[in-house]
Amino acid sequence: MEKVRLGIVGIGNMGSGHAKYLTEGAVKGAVLTAVADSSQVMLDQAVSKFGSHLKTYSSPDEMYRSGEIDGVLICTPHFDHPTEAIKALHAGLHVLIEKPAGVYTKQVREMNEAAAASDKVFGIMYNQRTNPLYAKMKDIISSGELGEVRRTNWIITNWYRSQSYYDMGGWRGTWAGEGGGVLINQDPHQLDLWQWTTGLKPKRMRAFCSFGKHRNIEVENDVTAYVEYENGASGVFVTSTFEAPGTNRYEISGERGKLVVEDGKLTFWRLRESETEFNRTFKGGFGSPECWKIDVPTAEAQDGEHQRITQNWADAILKGTKLLAPGVEGINGLMLSNAMLLSTWTNDWVDFPINEDLFYEKLQERIRESTFQKAPAEGGKVVDLKGTF
Amino acid sequence: MEKVRLGIVGIGNMGSGHAKYLTEGAVKGAVLTAVADSSQVMLDQAVSKFGSHLKTYSSPDEMYRSGEIDGVLICTPHFDHPTEAIKALHAGLHVLIEKPAGVYTKQVREMNEAAAASDKVFGIMYNQRTNPLYAKMKDIISSGELGEVRRTNWIITNWYRSQSYYDMGGWRGTWAGEGGGVLINQDPHQLDLWQWTTGLKPKRMRAFCSFGKHRNIEVENDVTAYVEYENGASGVFVTSTFEAPGTNRYEISGERGKLVVEDGKLTFWRLRESETEFNRTFKGGFGSPECWKIDVPTAEAQDGEHQRITQNWADAILKGTKLLAPGVEGINGLMLSNAMLLSTWTNDWVDFPINEDLFYEKLQERIRESTFQKAPAEGGKVVDLKGTF
Repeated sequence: MEKVRLGIVGIGNMGSGHAKYLTEGAVKGAVLTAVADSSQVMLDQAVSKFGSHLKTYSSPDEMYRSGEIDGVLICTPHFDHPTEAIKALHAGLHVLIEKPAGVYTKQVREMNEAAAASDKVFGIMYNQRTNPLYAKMKDIISSGELGEVRRTNWIITNWYRSQSYYDMGGWRGTWAGEGGGVLINQDPHQLDLWQWTTGLKPKRMRAFCSFGKHRNIEVENDVTAYVEYENGASGVFVTSTFEAPGTNRYEISGERGKLVVEDGKLTFWRLRESETEFNRTFKGGFGSPECWKIDVPTAEAQDGEHQRITQNWADAILKGTKLLAPGVEGINGLMLSNAMLLSTWTNDWVDFPINEDLFYEKLQERIRESTFQKAPAEGGKVVDLKGTF
Repeated sequence: MEKVRLGIVGIGNMGSGHAKYLTEGAVKGAVLTAVADSSQVMLDQAVSKFGSHLKTYSSPDEMYRSGEIDGVLICTPHFDHPTEAIKALHAGLHVLIEKPAGVYTKQVREMNEAAAASDKVFGIMYNQRTNPLYAKMKDIISSGELGEVRRTNWIITNWYRSQSYYDMGGWRGTWAGEGGGVLINQDPHQLDLWQWTTGLKPKRMRAFCSFGKHRNIEVENDVTAYVEYENGASGVFVTSTFEAPGTNRYEISGERGKLVVEDGKLTFWRLRESETEFNRTFKGGFGSPECWKIDVPTAEAQDGEHQRITQNWADAILKGTKLLAPGVEGINGLMLSNAMLLSTWTNDWVDFPINEDLFYEKLQERIRESTFQKAPAEGGKVVDLKGTF
């Protein structure tokens, strides 16, 4: 294969974003050849924007079986990511899904099983893994510079969303339409990075979600979660959509100091000797280990995070390059998100791995009992989401 | 009365600190005339350091009844603060207690009742209320500039304490000796400021304490607490003694912006219009209120916080000046601290006001079942605590 021929399912906001850079030839070895969408209006718009050479399909299944594509980018509403990925994998296609991996881990686990049974390349659009700040954080932790992690603390409350945002689509802010609120819509990257940077395995979680706080929506838009990891460390994750200006501050404390990402900068407070060693040998009563504050150099953040993930996936298909964001890892962040809701709903601890049947059942209850409008997401209106994902 | 004649009960670290500035005449209208301590060694040291005019008593009761003093500073181990305060109030003395107010709210409530039944001035050494950063924070909130508070978040993990610190006294790090760990020893000021700055009333709390983490002690040295306030706001308080360098960052988010104290600076992100108003009128989908970042000027932090509290208490006695830190308010921070332990011990929510009998019972269980040495605090050794309280 010289070039991977790509199709896009769902040519709304995200789908159009991918189509644009693919059409501009920004991903070497990949060419956009087809799009599928249930809306003829959207298909017509896509052809006029991205070229009349594009094959269009009103049904994704038709596109999967068309022989016109080798791989597919799945940019449908959240609920459909696993369903479409499974069908595409079964049709022998390479798959790159938008985040989140899905809405509940039960369906995502099935998707992962389908991927494992295939020989295709399965990726997820965790473009923030290419963000130099978090990549460097992970690098420092992996290299052992921080020592064993003892605490994580992410305050990510700068996902401001007004009522106007929620009113833009009938599906927004509803259980049936999106399957959740800030956790499933705004936080998937942070939930992925929270576990990806440290590599810690959560053991149990207790979380507190508020639903429709200061907003007329039924889903969660205020979350505080406490997690205990298998290594004995603990962590906190706080997120909301009604705070202005909000905060984005991620702190990781370890045996050899502290890392903080805030205001686009990574700072490392590095101990000259590990706290464990200092504590073992120090006999002076009051005193603490010598610490150096380090402004860690990181590459400039660049536009094109999405296309770098797509490039990496195309390279994996063509040359066997290692994936930055394997699709099977999408379940990790989603399980954290599901656990936060489940802990709130059961008013109890949630052990990992979570009881995915129970989560599914509780989610279905909420969908059934919803008093909000439940219009499914339709591609009829493209809002400018530039800079928001 | 021209001058308030003062006695000090417990002439160890804290007591000596107060004796020093009083002897130097740093508190106008107050004169140190007597000290009480169960240790003759300590009394002899006090006389040699602070003057042979001092009356010394091996029993506080004797000093209370001596007629030599009008008021007393109580600087005993934590457990004894309420007991001594009650006796002193009954003896017709003005009382200023060291923090914490006590170890459990049951005894502190009795102390407050005794104070309410007397006509004496009852203060607590919450010297951090004179810290310009927190005083200004409270001022901004009280004035309405921040609008209604929606979230509090205090990460106070820079109370580094090595094993060597805990080994300095047999009572340290034990239930019998101190009645708790980081919450009762290191955090009383933050727990007071956490509620004092915002004025929010806690409704319920869920907290997670670890005991003897990375240290050979039996008490809590790692705490994450989640609180819900009566006004619907929520908050997080994270503290520990094993992190180096740790963090001290206090964020309060409100309807009109965000306040953060960190690195000795107060920053106010101020919205031009309240979030509520913006949200009601904005129709643009994505968008957020205009925000101004303001470096808030605050007076330089000065030495002598303790003597300013003592001065204020003396002024209250002599001239009826309003107390900065009324003794009866000591119960507020202590109740937060007790609630954090109680929530952990019961593995459940704790409603406010807490069940103080249950807390007392659970604490006594721990004291009885302690396997650590339980030497009561004795004044035999003075460690340099300068800059640590």
